[in-house]
Formats: sequence, C-alpha cells, structure tokens
Amino acid sequence: MPDKLLRMHRTGQGKGARDRPVMLAIAGDSASGKTTVTAGLVKALGAERCTAVCVDDYHRYDRSERASLPFTALHPDCNHVDIMEQHLQLLATGHPVLKPVYDHHAGVLTRPQYVEPRQFVIVEGLLPLHTKLAAACFDVAVYLNPPEAIRRAWKVKRDTAHRGYTQEQVRAELDRREPESERFIRPQRARADIVVRFAPVEQRADPPGTPLSAELLLRPTIRHPDLTTILVGSGGSMHLKLTRDSDGRPVDSLHIHGYAPREDTHLLKKAIWSGLGGTKEVPPVLGDLGDAGHSDPLAVTQLLLLHHLIESAR
Amino acid sequence: MPDKLLRMHRTGQGKGARDRPVMLAIAGDSASGKTTVTAGLVKALGAERCTAVCVDDYHRYDRSERASLPFTALHPDCNHVDIMEQHLQLLATGHPVLKPVYDHHAGVLTRPQYVEPRQFVIVEGLLPLHTKLAAACFDVAVYLNPPEAIRRAWKVKRDTAHRGYTQEQVRAELDRREPESERFIRPQRARADIVVRFAPVEQRADPPGTPLSAELLLRPTIRHPDLTTILVGSGGSMHLKLTRDSDGRPVDSLHIHGYAPREDTHLLKKAIWSGLGGTKEVPPVLGDLGDAGHSDPLAVTQLLLLHHLIESAR
Repeated sequence: MPDKLLRMHRTGQGKGARDRPVMLAIAGDSASGKTTVTAGLVKALGAERCTAVCVDDYHRYDRSERASLPFTALHPDCNHVDIMEQHLQLLATGHPVLKPVYDHHAGVLTRPQYVEPRQFVIVEGLLPLHTKLAAACFDVAVYLNPPEAIRRAWKVKRDTAHRGYTQEQVRAELDRREPESERFIRPQRARADIVVRFAPVEQRADPPGTPLSAELLLRPTIRHPDLTTILVGSGGSMHLKLTRDSDGRPVDSLHIHGYAPREDTHLLKKAIWSGLGGTKEVPPVLGDLGDAGHSDPLAVTQLLLLHHLIESAR
Repeated sequence: MPDKLLRMHRTGQGKGARDRPVMLAIAGDSASGKTTVTAGLVKALGAERCTAVCVDDYHRYDRSERASLPFTALHPDCNHVDIMEQHLQLLATGHPVLKPVYDHHAGVLTRPQYVEPRQFVIVEGLLPLHTKLAAACFDVAVYLNPPEAIRRAWKVKRDTAHRGYTQEQVRAELDRREPESERFIRPQRARADIVVRFAPVEQRADPPGTPLSAELLLRPTIRHPDLTTILVGSGGSMHLKLTRDSDGRPVDSLHIHGYAPREDTHLLKKAIWSGLGGTKEVPPVLGDLGDAGHSDPLAVTQLLLLHHLIESAR
C-alpha cells in the first residue's frame, strides 16, 4: 500500500465523516419469523428510512455446487463470512456495498446489488451474529428462538405453500440441517441483546386462534426501557420477571401472553409508543401476521425493537 | 454504528496487520495495450504471486440497459466508481473483495468473484485513476498513451478478429466514444507516474516488421532506477532526455527505438534485470506480442515496471 493512501486516511480525505446508521440484527434459523418481524418494523419506520439486508445472500456456492458438498447452506464454510463481516462494517460506518444476490428460487448467484445504508439498517438471516466482529457491527442484536416443534411447523407450512416442496421433503431437509443448526445457528443466541420466543403457554388450553405468547429475554447488554411502571396493573397476562439466563447471568424476562386482553396490551403498546414520541395511534402494521391475522405479543415485540432503533438514532 | 465496533477497530481486532500488496495501475483507453503489458508482468512474476483485476467489471448497467442511456461504458456514471474505490482500498490494505463480474461476451453482469490480494496486485482498465482516492491506492500508476491512429487500428483488428464486429461497427463505436475518451479517459494521464507511448518514430521509414518504439515519461512522483550509466554507449537508439511535461514540469523521457540493435537493448534489459537481483536470463515472455511476435521496447517497458514492483515489495 502506498503512502499516499495512508495519508488520505489520516487526513480523512478517504472515508469522510459519513452519517452512521443504526444497525439491527435479526438472527434465527430458517422459518423462525425473521421476515415477519422485519416487515412490520420497515412499515412502521417507513421504507424510505430503512435498508433491509438478508445475509443469506452471501452464499459461496450455488445449489448445483452445494449438491456435491458435505455441508448445508447453514455451514459458515458455505458462505462468504469474511465478506459479510466486511459489508456489515462498511454499512455500519455509512458506506455503500455491492451486495451479492442469491436467487433462492433458481438456486443461483446473480448480479450483485448496490446497497446504501439509510437511517436504519435491518440485517436478517441465518448467520449475522456468527462471528464476534459481525456481531460488533450491531447496535441491537435479536435472536428468534421459537420451540423447534413450532419452527418445524412454520417451515413445513411456508415451504409447501410458497416454495413448491412436499411435507416429506421439508422434514427431510430439517433433519439434514439439524446438526448444523445445533452447531452454528443456535450458538448465536448467546450474542443477542434480546432473545425472542413465540410459543403457546404451557399447561393452558387456550381456544384455537389464540396468538402465541412472547417471552423476551432482555439482557443487560443494552439499556431497555423501564417497563415496571407500565406493567403495574396488567394482571398476570403481562409481566416482567427477574430471572437467570441459561448461563446463570441475571436477565429480565418479559412475558406477553397470547390470551392477554386487548385493552391491557393496548395500554402497554401505547405507553411504549408515546415514550418514543409517537403522537398518533400505534401503527396497525405492528403485529401483522399476514394471512394468519394479528398478534399483540408480536406487536409489543416490534414496539420494543422500535424503541431501541429510535433511541439509538437519538 | 455501535461503540463495540469502534472499540474493535481501535484495538486492531477488526482489521489486523495484514500483509499489504504492491499495487500497480495500468490505465488506458480501449485497445491501448493494457492486457499485453499486464500478461508479460504476470508471467514474469509468476501467476501465484499476482492478482490481476480488470476494473471494467464495475459496470453499473448491462448492455441492454446501456442501450437506452445517453452515455457509453466509458462514462463514470456508467460505473460503480465508489465501489471500485472501496475495493481498491480494501485490496491495498490486504483484504479480500467480492468483485463484480461483467461478461463482455454476453454483455451481462454475472455472479461476483472472490478476489484475494497476492503479493502484487495489477489493476488494469479504463478508469482505475479516475478519482484521486482510487489513484492513491497505487504504488505505481501507468497510463498507456499510443497515438489515436495506432489505437484505432489495434481496436479494429482486435474487435473484428475476436469480438465479432465489422470494421464499420468498430469505427462507429470509436467515434461515439470519442467525447467521453477525451473527457474521462485521457485526463488520467496526469495521475500516472509513467506514461507509455508506443509509436513509430516520426520521419523515419523503417522496414515493415520493425517494432514500434517506446517513449516513456518517467515522472519524478516515484523514484526511478538510474539509467544514465546503463545507457552510455547505446548510441542514438536508446536515450534518456531531460525535458518538460505537457504541463511544463520537469520530467525524464526514455526512448527505446524499435530499430535499436538487439545487442543494445539486450544490454539494457540485462542491466535492469540484474539490478533486480535476477541471476538467470531475462524472462523471454517480456516483450511477447502474441501473434505479432516480439518487441524489445515493450520488454524494456515491462522490465522497468518489474523494477518498480519488486522495489516496492522490498
């Protein structure tokens, strides 16, 4: 490298003082709800303020090449993890990237896409928190952690309805991926600031159509809003519990039960929203499940993420 | 951008102390000889020590998209110049890039290519010196500057023989591109450390088959080898002349005439080669013109570039 370039870096002529975006990671296994969570955030913030990036595009091999390889698309060796890290660093420092594009329908790598970071960059995918350096690029990191039975059901439903697979094919693929899910996807849970688990409440027989409850581990790695006063009087359907994380460290656990009365969740949603300076109604896109209707636990989860995005931008 | 990332940068955890390559730019208009000069350098150094990058792959539009645009592929707006700059900086600091790939045959942008910098990175193309920041990435910058009549003849020959165009089509394209050559390609001459001009010697009637002479402007922006002692006794067929550049600044001008006796050029070649520590014969690939035979002025030009590459690596 020539001295000229070093000099430009030192004097700031190269990478000027660019506006740096707020970076949010949404990590999780296939069909864990990443797209659903992201879509509501982008709609609530406005697409013109958001850049959404899926890091599953950083595949090193296309589908035909992978067929002869001993690992699945979940394996870091199957992905350009170093380039993903580089692009996350560039976006985090306000620079554009030429992002690779994987055509999931045809299973081929195609023409890359020019991506500029807007005010909020939402990065979802299988491995955005795989390395320490990648994880360090985010202001807020989320890991979606539904029970495996629920995730498998979601994946079967989606891949048979929209990706042309049979139930048997999807289940076989899930089994084939399991060792790599265990080894590479789930360890990212440890790097998240917030771990989100949508699941039915155990030992309750809620009527069909009751939304899944949300359990949010709010780790002290970032500063969460003070929910204690807001939650007073919401009865047992929503509560914040001081508990221990799976590694023994202290953590707050926020529960929003699917059977919570809408008046109660409405108060909570409104309190978070107005805390963000929202004067109008809570955006109705929050909690939207598409064909599957609406979920207030999802809406509260998204509001909490919005809180972090907007607070980080301040 | 989160504080975690800043901290990693400060402590050097992010971008470690990587080996930094020597960077050489070979800029010039279409069919000015870039590939020929580069090929000899790569063969002489060994492909395993070289990374050759063509920056004409950073096209923003494919051929069909360009058809409706008011500019040619030479226009910076037709290229991802900011991404080219970014990738040159990354390579110069020892990092890999995921380089876009333009299929010049089909005229489409395809799957990008993972490129790691080896010891020597040779970057050729139309616009590698277009911006100050791009130019600052190079240890040595060369601009190829043949007379337009020669370059047009080379382009007609190449594009009719290898790219399936008629003579009329190539000439029409050259005319169409002329305003952008003038505006964007030729100004890069000012950013070069060495300007190379292959041309017949004026007012001489050399027999057919005489190689073109080379005129090399050796600008004082980098330290050139001391040729004065080497050139003593080479008669008028090779000489170094103190002169003025087109902007009036002092410059050395090295002439190697195509009619120079091979014994004379052989001595010069050998002197530069042994100055580089070369103990064996001068690599015969230097000066190779493919079907068009051999040129000693080209060989001397390449040796001078090898000198700079190897000196910069020390």
